[in-house]
Amino acid sequence: MTPVYFDNAATTKIRDKVIDAMVTVMHNNYGNASSTHSLGRSSKALIEYSRKVIAKYFNVSASEIVFTSGGTEADNLVLRSAVRDMGVTRIITSKIEHHAVLHAVAQLKTEYGIVVDYVDLDENGQVDYMHLEGLLQSTHKTLVSLMHVNNEIGNILDIKRVAFLCKAHKALFHSDTVQSIGHYELDLKALPIDFLAASAHKFHGPKGVGFAFVRKGSGLKPLIFGGEQERGYRAGTESIHNIIGLEKALTQAYEHLAEERLYIKDLKQYFIEKLKLELPNSVFNGLSGDMEKSTYTLVNVGLPISPEKSAMFLFQLDLKNIACSKGSACQSGSIQASHVLSEVVGVNDFQKTSLRFSFSIYNTKEEVDYVIGVLKDLI
Amino acid sequence: MTPVYFDNAATTKIRDKVIDAMVTVMHNNYGNASSTHSLGRSSKALIEYSRKVIAKYFNVSASEIVFTSGGTEADNLVLRSAVRDMGVTRIITSKIEHHAVLHAVAQLKTEYGIVVDYVDLDENGQVDYMHLEGLLQSTHKTLVSLMHVNNEIGNILDIKRVAFLCKAHKALFHSDTVQSIGHYELDLKALPIDFLAASAHKFHGPKGVGFAFVRKGSGLKPLIFGGEQERGYRAGTESIHNIIGLEKALTQAYEHLAEERLYIKDLKQYFIEKLKLELPNSVFNGLSGDMEKSTYTLVNVGLPISPEKSAMFLFQLDLKNIACSKGSACQSGSIQASHVLSEVVGVNDFQKTSLRFSFSIYNTKEEVDYVIGVLKDLI
Ligand SMILES: Cc1ncc(COP(=O)(O)O)c(C=O)c1O
Ligand SMILES: Cc1ncc(COP(=O)(O)O)c(C=O)c1O
Repeated sequence: MTPVYFDNAATTKIRDKVIDAMVTVMHNNYGNASSTHSLGRSSKALIEYSRKVIAKYFNVSASEIVFTSGGTEADNLVLRSAVRDMGVTRIITSKIEHHAVLHAVAQLKTEYGIVVDYVDLDENGQVDYMHLEGLLQSTHKTLVSLMHVNNEIGNILDIKRVAFLCKAHKALFHSDTVQSIGHYELDLKALPIDFLAASAHKFHGPKGVGFAFVRKGSGLKPLIFGGEQERGYRAGTESIHNIIGLEKALTQAYEHLAEERLYIKDLKQYFIEKLKLELPNSVFNGLSGDMEKSTYTLVNVGLPISPEKSAMFLFQLDLKNIACSKGSACQSGSIQASHVLSEVVGVNDFQKTSLRFSFSIYNTKEEVDYVIGVLKDLI
Repeated sequence: MTPVYFDNAATTKIRDKVIDAMVTVMHNNYGNASSTHSLGRSSKALIEYSRKVIAKYFNVSASEIVFTSGGTEADNLVLRSAVRDMGVTRIITSKIEHHAVLHAVAQLKTEYGIVVDYVDLDENGQVDYMHLEGLLQSTHKTLVSLMHVNNEIGNILDIKRVAFLCKAHKALFHSDTVQSIGHYELDLKALPIDFLAASAHKFHGPKGVGFAFVRKGSGLKPLIFGGEQERGYRAGTESIHNIIGLEKALTQAYEHLAEERLYIKDLKQYFIEKLKLELPNSVFNGLSGDMEKSTYTLVNVGLPISPEKSAMFLFQLDLKNIACSKGSACQSGSIQASHVLSEVVGVNDFQKTSLRFSFSIYNTKEEVDYVIGVLKDLI
C-alpha cells in the first residue's frame, strides 16, 4: 500500500514535470552561470528567465528576487541584514513563528542586543492587531516579522493590515511566506511589504532552494560573502537545476491555482465534517477549523488521546501507512511539545493529543475516509 | 559541434550515474528528513548514509561532516563562527584565495575589527612558509585560511606543513579544499586540520551542495539559524537529492581516482608539450606548468596577445566552440583583472593574455589538438 501522505505542510512531493525540467537542465546546462562562454551564458539565461517568471507572479521586478538555499536561509538573510545593515534595533514578531525566524531573532538579540517584542495572540493564535499598533509607537527603528500562514495551525495573517500598519509607523515588514507562496497570490505592488521568504519544497518543487523578495533600495547585504552571484546579494555558484525546479513548480502552482485550491479546500472541508461526525470529541486547534481564517491546506486537531499515548499513536498511524505530524517537521523528532501549540492550546486541551494533517492535490477523499476510519479504530 | 569544455575548474558536467541517483530520490524519497514517519525516516537514512560514506573517505567521523549549499557557504560558516564563537581575533590568509574566503574575511574585519594578515607569496604564488611561521608568533587567537589547490593557477599548498605549523603555534587551520576534494585524497586522522570546505559541482556532482568538515569539539555555531537539521549546525530542510548527488559524485571520484587522475594528468602533460611546441612564446602562470607542484586538472597560460585584444579573443574562442576562462568563473564577467594573476604575474608578462584551461575525464587529446590549433590560427 502506498502511504497516505497527509504531511504536505512538512514538505510536498515534487511534480513529475518539475523533475523532468530539472533533469534536462542537469544533462544539458552544466555551464557555470558566471562563465562568459556560451555554456555559461545559457545557464545564466535560464536563471534570469526563472527570476523574471517568478517576479511577474508577485508583480515585482526581477532584480527584487534573490535565490537562496531555502526558506530558512531567506529568513536569516533578511533578519540579519536588517539589524546589521539597515539600522534595525528592534524586532516585533510572535511566539508562533517558525524557528527559522525565532531562532534567527534570538541569535541577533544575543549578538546585537536588539530589543525583541512579541505581539499578543488571542486564544486561537490570532495576532492582536491593536496590540501590534501599540507596539509600533516607538522611536526604535523597527522590523516586524510575522508569517503569512502559520505552518502548524494554518492561521492566515491579515497581511494587508499589517503591511499598512508598518508603513504608517515607518517600520520594515518581513513576512515568512513559506507556507503561503504557491498557495496564495500576493500582489506586491499593492502591498507595502519589504521582504518575503519562500521555499520551493512547500509547493511541489525541489528541497534546498527558495528565494527572498527584497524590495528595491532596502540596503540589504549578503549573509554569504564571495562571488558576485545574485547581483552581489548571495554568493555561491547557482544551483541551476534547483532554481529551474523552483520556477517550474511555482508556475505549475499558479497556473492551476484556482482548480487545485478548490480541490484541496473540498478535501479539508470533507475531513472536518467527517471528523466531527466520527470523533465528536475532537477539537480544532488555532483557526484551522475555520475555512476562511485558515489555509485550505491543513487542519490541526486535538484528538481525545492522553498525551502519554501520543508518541505511540503516531507510530501506530505510521504502521497503518499514514504520514502526518505532531508539530512542524523540524521538531517532530524532539520530545518537546510544539512551541506553537504551547502558545495557543488552552488548558482544557491538555488531555488531548494534537496532530496536523496537511493536504495536497495528490490526496483523495478515499484517503480521508481511510485515515478517519483508522483514527476511530485506534481511539 | 559539441563544445570543447576546458573550463572544469569553473564547474563540471554531472556524471549520468549521479543524475540517475538524484532522480530516483526525487521520485521516491520526498519525505522531510525531520519527519518521524516512515517517509521521513527513509529520507533521513539516505542523508546519514551519505554522511557516513563521505566521512570514511577522509577518515573522520560522520558527525564532523556538515552539509551546506556549497563551498562558499562552507567557507563563510567556518570563518564567521571562528571569529564570533571561537574567540579568533586574527586571520592569516593569502591574497590569492577565492573570494568566498577573501570577501568573507573582509566582512568579518569590518564587523569585528579582527586583524587580517596576508602571507607572502613568491613570484609563482607559492606560500612563503617561513613568513607564515613568523606570522604565527603572535599572542592573538589566530585562524589560518589557506586553500589546498588554487582555482586559477593550480598551485598545491603543502597542506601537511601548514597543518603542523598551525598546530605547533596553536592556531586554527581552515583550508578551502573546493578544488582538491574529489581530485586529491586527504587523511584527516593524520593531518591536524580543523576545517575544510568542499563543493560537489567541482567533481561532477550537482551545483548548490557542498560540505564543511568541522573537527569535533570546535565550538562551531551556525551561519543559518532555525530547525535542528545537521545536528544543529545548519538549519533548513535538507536538499536530499543534492546530498545524494554529492555523495554519489564523491564515491565515483574516489573509486576511479587512480585511473582518472592518470588520464587527466596525461592530457595536461600533452597540452603543455603541444603548447610549448606550437606557441613557444607562451608562459605558464603560477606553478601550473609544473606537473608536480600544481594540480593535474588545469593550466594557466600567458599567451602572446595584447591584453586589449583579450576580451575579443575569448569571444573568438567561444565562436570556435571552446569554453575556457580568464580568471575564476565568478569574476569572468567583470572587466577587472583576476586578483590572483595581479598578485603573481610579473611585469614581464603584462603584454600577455592569460587563459585558464581546465580538464576532466570527458576531455580528449583530439580536443587539445583542436584547441591549440585554434590558438595558433588566431594568434
Ligand atoms: C577555491 C574555491 N573556493 C570556493 C568556491 C566556491 O564554491 P561554490 O561554487 O560551491 O560556492 C570555488 C568555486 O566556485 C572555488 O574554486
Ligand atoms: C513557515 C516556515 N518558515 C520557514 C520554513 C523553512 O523553510 P526551508 O525548509 O526551506 O528551510 C518552513 C518549513 O520548513 C516553514 O514552514
